[in-house]
Amino acid sequence: MVKVQDILNKIEEFAPLSIKMDGDPSGFQIGDRDQEVHKVMTTLDVRPKVVKEAIDNGVDLILAHHPIMFHAARNLDLSSPQNQMYRDLLANNIAVNASHTNLDKAHGGMNDWLMERLREHVDIKDSGYIDPDDDYSIGRVADLTTSMDVLEFAKKVHDAYELKNLRYVVSEAGQPVKRVALIGGDAGKFYPEVLKSGADTFITGDVYYHTAHDMMSAGLNVIDPGHHIEAIFIEKMAHKLADWSNAYHWDLDIIKSEINTEPYNFI
Amino acid sequence: MVKVQDILNKIEEFAPLSIKMDGDPSGFQIGDRDQEVHKVMTTLDVRPKVVKEAIDNGVDLILAHHPIMFHAARNLDLSSPQNQMYRDLLANNIAVNASHTNLDKAHGGMNDWLMERLREHVDIKDSGYIDPDDDYSIGRVADLTTSMDVLEFAKKVHDAYELKNLRYVVSEAGQPVKRVALIGGDAGKFYPEVLKSGADTFITGDVYYHTAHDMMSAGLNVIDPGHHIEAIFIEKMAHKLADWSNAYHWDLDIIKSEINTEPYNFI
Amino acid sequence: MVKVQDILNKIEEFAPLSIKMDGDPSGFQIGDRDQEVHKVMTTLDVRPKVVKEAIDNGVDLILAHHPIMFHAARNLDLSSPQNQMYRDLLANNIAVNASHTNLDKAHGGMNDWLMERLREHVDIKDSGYIDPDDDYSIGRVADLTTSMDVLEFAKKVHDAYELKNLRYVVSEAGQPVKRVALIGGDAGKFYPEVLKSGADTFITGDVYYHTAHDMMSAGLNVIDPGHHIEAIFIEKMAHKLADWSNAYHWDLDIIKSEINTEPYNFI
Amino acid sequence: MVKVQDILNKIEEFAPLSIKMDGDPSGFQIGDRDQEVHKVMTTLDVRPKVVKEAIDNGVDLILAHHPIMFHAARNLDLSSPQNQMYRDLLANNIAVNASHTNLDKAHGGMNDWLMERLREHVDIKDSGYIDPDDDYSIGRVADLTTSMDVLEFAKKVHDAYELKNLRYVVSEAGQPVKRVALIGGDAGKFYPEVLKSGADTFITGDVYYHTAHDMMSAGLNVIDPGHHIEAIFIEKMAHKLADWSNAYHWDLDIIKSEINTEPYNFI
Amino acid sequence: MVKVQDILNKIEEFAPLSIKMDGDPSGFQIGDRDQEVHKVMTTLDVRPKVVKEAIDNGVDLILAHHPIMFHAARNLDLSSPQNQMYRDLLANNIAVNASHTNLDKAHGGMNDWLMERLREHVDIKDSGYIDPDDDYSIGRVADLTTSMDVLEFAKKVHDAYELKNLRYVVSEAGQPVKRVALIGGDAGKFYPEVLKSGADTFITGDVYYHTAHDMMSAGLNVIDPGHHIEAIFIEKMAHKLADWSNAYHWDLDIIKSEINTEPYNFI
Amino acid sequence: MVKVQDILNKIEEFAPLSIKMDGDPSGFQIGDRDQEVHKVMTTLDVRPKVVKEAIDNGVDLILAHHPIMFHAARNLDLSSPQNQMYRDLLANNIAVNASHTNLDKAHGGMNDWLMERLREHVDIKDSGYIDPDDDYSIGRVADLTTSMDVLEFAKKVHDAYELKNLRYVVSEAGQPVKRVALIGGDAGKFYPEVLKSGADTFITGDVYYHTAHDMMSAGLNVIDPGHHIEAIFIEKMAHKLADWSNAYHWDLDIIKSEINTEPYNFI
Repeated sequence: MVKVQDILNKIEEFAPLSIKMDGDPSGFQIGDRDQEVHKVMTTLDVRPKVVKEAIDNGVDLILAHHPIMFHAARNLDLSSPQNQMYRDLLANNIAVNASHTNLDKAHGGMNDWLMERLREHVDIKDSGYIDPDDDYSIGRVADLTTSMDVLEFAKKVHDAYELKNLRYVVSEAGQPVKRVALIGGDAGKFYPEVLKSGADTFITGDVYYHTAHDMMSAGLNVIDPGHHIEAIFIEKMAHKLADWSNAYHWDLDIIKSEINTEPYNFI
Repeated sequence: MVKVQDILNKIEEFAPLSIKMDGDPSGFQIGDRDQEVHKVMTTLDVRPKVVKEAIDNGVDLILAHHPIMFHAARNLDLSSPQNQMYRDLLANNIAVNASHTNLDKAHGGMNDWLMERLREHVDIKDSGYIDPDDDYSIGRVADLTTSMDVLEFAKKVHDAYELKNLRYVVSEAGQPVKRVALIGGDAGKFYPEVLKSGADTFITGDVYYHTAHDMMSAGLNVIDPGHHIEAIFIEKMAHKLADWSNAYHWDLDIIKSEINTEPYNFI
Repeated sequence: MVKVQDILNKIEEFAPLSIKMDGDPSGFQIGDRDQEVHKVMTTLDVRPKVVKEAIDNGVDLILAHHPIMFHAARNLDLSSPQNQMYRDLLANNIAVNASHTNLDKAHGGMNDWLMERLREHVDIKDSGYIDPDDDYSIGRVADLTTSMDVLEFAKKVHDAYELKNLRYVVSEAGQPVKRVALIGGDAGKFYPEVLKSGADTFITGDVYYHTAHDMMSAGLNVIDPGHHIEAIFIEKMAHKLADWSNAYHWDLDIIKSEINTEPYNFI
Repeated sequence: MVKVQDILNKIEEFAPLSIKMDGDPSGFQIGDRDQEVHKVMTTLDVRPKVVKEAIDNGVDLILAHHPIMFHAARNLDLSSPQNQMYRDLLANNIAVNASHTNLDKAHGGMNDWLMERLREHVDIKDSGYIDPDDDYSIGRVADLTTSMDVLEFAKKVHDAYELKNLRYVVSEAGQPVKRVALIGGDAGKFYPEVLKSGADTFITGDVYYHTAHDMMSAGLNVIDPGHHIEAIFIEKMAHKLADWSNAYHWDLDIIKSEINTEPYNFI
Repeated sequence: MVKVQDILNKIEEFAPLSIKMDGDPSGFQIGDRDQEVHKVMTTLDVRPKVVKEAIDNGVDLILAHHPIMFHAARNLDLSSPQNQMYRDLLANNIAVNASHTNLDKAHGGMNDWLMERLREHVDIKDSGYIDPDDDYSIGRVADLTTSMDVLEFAKKVHDAYELKNLRYVVSEAGQPVKRVALIGGDAGKFYPEVLKSGADTFITGDVYYHTAHDMMSAGLNVIDPGHHIEAIFIEKMAHKLADWSNAYHWDLDIIKSEINTEPYNFI
Repeated sequence: MVKVQDILNKIEEFAPLSIKMDGDPSGFQIGDRDQEVHKVMTTLDVRPKVVKEAIDNGVDLILAHHPIMFHAARNLDLSSPQNQMYRDLLANNIAVNASHTNLDKAHGGMNDWLMERLREHVDIKDSGYIDPDDDYSIGRVADLTTSMDVLEFAKKVHDAYELKNLRYVVSEAGQPVKRVALIGGDAGKFYPEVLKSGADTFITGDVYYHTAHDMMSAGLNVIDPGHHIEAIFIEKMAHKLADWSNAYHWDLDIIKSEINTEPYNFI
């Protein structure tokens, strides 16, 4: 028998809340820490359809990457769909934990998962931290075995993350791809740190128009695979949990959300 | 048949949210505005025992004076008793509306109720607003027909609000009670406004030690009947609601909370 | 003979700086207001290649939609490509004026141009301001003659603005497109104002992942044609200028930038 | 012969200003550090009657717990009773020093005096700091030899501090009193720290109505003996001073203020 | 018989506190508003020697231009010479009122006095307000009958205010003096307003090195007669007071401080 | 052959930017770090005439004490003389570096240069840092071999820096000059630090009227030689550069600006 708090304890060892970024509300967000857990579901986002899926499947605990409560709730007026999710989760005894920027930075966490996936499609000699002096650097950097042009590299990223749609930006300096920085989520604002790492190419999502211009000028190629590549969380976190479940004899049923929370469709 | 929103509409006419003080989270706080209402309960505070009372009585809507959500909820972790109340209310389809500083200032609202009660125990010639130029003044002021000494007046306040315990402060100027200012709740910080009104005596709750000294020096007697005299809300709001129910044929069952939410006991 | 300041005066009548948003550095940014102007170039953005184009064409004045100096220059260290542009413009006596949010809001300005283009591809009954009480509303709203489903409408937007790539978001409420709000640039953060206008569908660029989720939940379809549709500025502003040139006998050579400043490529 | 500064030096050793809380104006507030001292008076507060007492008794130096200048003086307009005190003190060469939060936290200071007094009326096994890792913890915590119910314990506090009036709050959890935290003055806002110390019961003054509710819910019994129990300062500080006077042959006349500065009367 | 408050009332009519600049602590600063006044002294500054002069002359009220309490007093520790002045004033029943920026802006106040003095040494056609739309403009502007070069004009200013020392700055544009702006005290930071008034030359004190450069570049000549020319206050305010004394039969002895509070000596 | 960056590297060793004060924009401000340098000019300030001088002399690099860009440029509108300087410098390939507060604090920098000059005119026993615990103290302090009165000392300062004009302030305490603190530029606001150093006399420029009063009262004599004594930079920095040029075989032509940037003339 395992309780919510037992699972939170393992997550804390893996991706401690002390390393999360300021203002990120990661951690335990909804429910009862003392509740027994029989079925856990992993998901990138907690959206209304995901809540319905959890209810339909008798889930006790949701492990999400993105916090469900990004903003504190000033009221619980049910005319808001956001508040309806809270009500439905509480009514169905479903607890929710979010591991966001603590997981991004954790050793063997989000950015390492994304890099590992990339490595399956591109030959990489060496990889390390964007800021090598920071034990919990915000991102990863890797040197390709052979440089390639931006379009060729963009296609490999497209394949690696199985994308429908990919945007890329070619540096005004026109250099090929040789040293690649990678940060999951939307990390365009960190491009000065990326430049300091010596990278010529930056993979990150949700790049802003004017920031794209700034990066072009500053000599960075940019590959924007979108924010949704972090859906890798679903499988990786489920796997992590399965390992713990085996190790500690938790007898846990682990399911992966099958709802696509990518908000965008493409033409 | 009446819905939550219908009742909110009448409250808005009576004590509009536009007149509430900055930072006061008064208004609709929990539940479904479209829900039908059969039974309403009035209460000063929404505390765990009050929630239980509402559940036990099959209440659909709670009308409270003090907001249940004074602070926005950063999470809904059920290890907090505050969050447990939210869960229990949502699970039992009980909506909550708070009318706090908007009601204090409304014409015929909290401060007028308190003044009317005082008038039943003290001869008052004339009464008006603390700031006569403000249509929604924060308090009321009244002239006694005959002046009296502070202890004598304090006893009348004690009787008027049926108190177990009353604190009072005698002005260093030593003047008797002739012109009385009254603000429900804890309004010690507004004593400069009270002085401007020409009052010699100030009735308000939860007076702070150093503010008591300041008011003594500034020439104010102070009568502190505590914060709980606002329990007058329970009866007065129920009465108000009954009037509306009759006028609009709402067929509403109205009950008054019987839980004493006064946190203090006295020796 | 016409001077820079004469042209600025006409722009000020058309899109006065007093209506621009707080923090937008629109207005005259680089060069000499007293300089004679023989050749003007219109452009969406001022990027290094655009500067080169202006030099190559002997341009005296650039009229841009996006400010070249979004941020004040703390130094003019030429290791920065941004500063290199300033040097090249000054060295070649090319003045630069930006009309950004003042133009967005102007009557007959950016949002009206975009709406007019849409109207050429979709049957629209009626159109007006997002906030009808605001003479310089941030956007426009229009009612379709016949409602249509989101994909169908998205295709029409795709055609209207001749896009390679378009992202769209389908509201959780699932309603068809009937009342459309439109704001050029990236205006996702204004979605609460859009909701107040009664729109069911919102056209704007550079939508952020989590805001996309919020809009889905709030009952909005979203069409994201990107930020670059504002390139309509190039032609429309050139046309405006040609009208003035005729009316005032300015004898002006007007060219349209042929550099594509869209930073994104798509796979 | 002893000067004001000699006495300040000993106070600084005992209760150094470096440990006072941010914003507390403790320290030397009025008068001449070089003045010879023949007669010292200890008092909890410096109020107009206390100033008169000091003048009538030919006092040279007042040692107070509460600062006389809580707020900086924007003027010395004598229509304010506060400014009148300053004038009277200066005119009579009476210096004033305040030892407030530095004394609260000092080893053998206010909180230890209050705990020692409690110990004379209740059997206590063990006592220590609220935050055991902080050398100058804001309060003290003690374990009763035998647990008792809240009313019984409240009566003992009532006796210990010779109170006319005492308010107490019973935890919603209903547990008896076993581990008691104590902070002089009004320290309700520190209740989360008190909870971390493992205390089930909290003694502090001037508790606020809504904070009382929060503490009840959080599982704390609260004993509110008022703010005036700190009058223990008068005797304890006089005693401390007498010790120094003997040790250093200061030939000092030490008197204790006999003015009751408790602002409240009770019915 | 006249009281302090009677004199304050006349000053308020002449130079109302409502027109003073934000942050200026002008007004009644020290003493008893109800005290009878027999002897008044006018002074530019209240410095220790001025206080001694007032005591030696049996003064009841000091009227100063510069506030004695620029900063609120956090304590009255007499080791500070500033606090010693407060003590001496209170001990000798000397009240202090300051009329600073309210007097600068008053009609017939400081700036008008200074302009009138200038007019006695320079032919001036016309004079008015720096900002003609503001009834209480921060300064005055005047047109010379005949333009003159900067050195010649500087000499006239030197004579007009009987200065030992004068600094002046010649505009990079090199224009002669024709339209002069004048603001008493140190008003260098207002030079953009001065430019808007069309002035070519600015008289003000305590000009800062880098601001002097900015004004040179912006096309302003600057005459810096120092801050002490405001000593004109001593005579002018005494005269004003004498007028009131006659008109209201106040029987007042009016003296002018003879202490030179100019802090600077010159080589 | 030497490049701009080579010279910047030596300046960084001598006066590292890491020691500059917050808000000081010292460092490389205008131009191309990779440009070859043949002729360098040293100057206190970069004003329009200095720019002209640099152009006329074919200068490649200006080394200044005061930053040319004190404020970030919000635009490059050439109606501003400040912006005209930037344009002229860029158009003529003249780079600009400023060493301001980093140089003030550097070992062997501005304050040491000024002290050394003083020492040539006054007998000084001993000198050190204002704050001896700070490796990069804001100023210097020195003990005279023999004390002298303020006027005598002021005359020596007058001679040392070859001044036309000098202001001085005599302490109310009236003590002679024995221990002197020196800070270049305008450092009046640091007088409390100066007092802590035990100095009786403070040399600094641009002293403010009310600060002069405060320093008089606090027991400081003040010698205000103006801001322009820092023109010592021109010679000293040229000398420093010549040393480097010799040591590294830079083959550099070094000239000293002959434009007097002192904005003030004196009568």
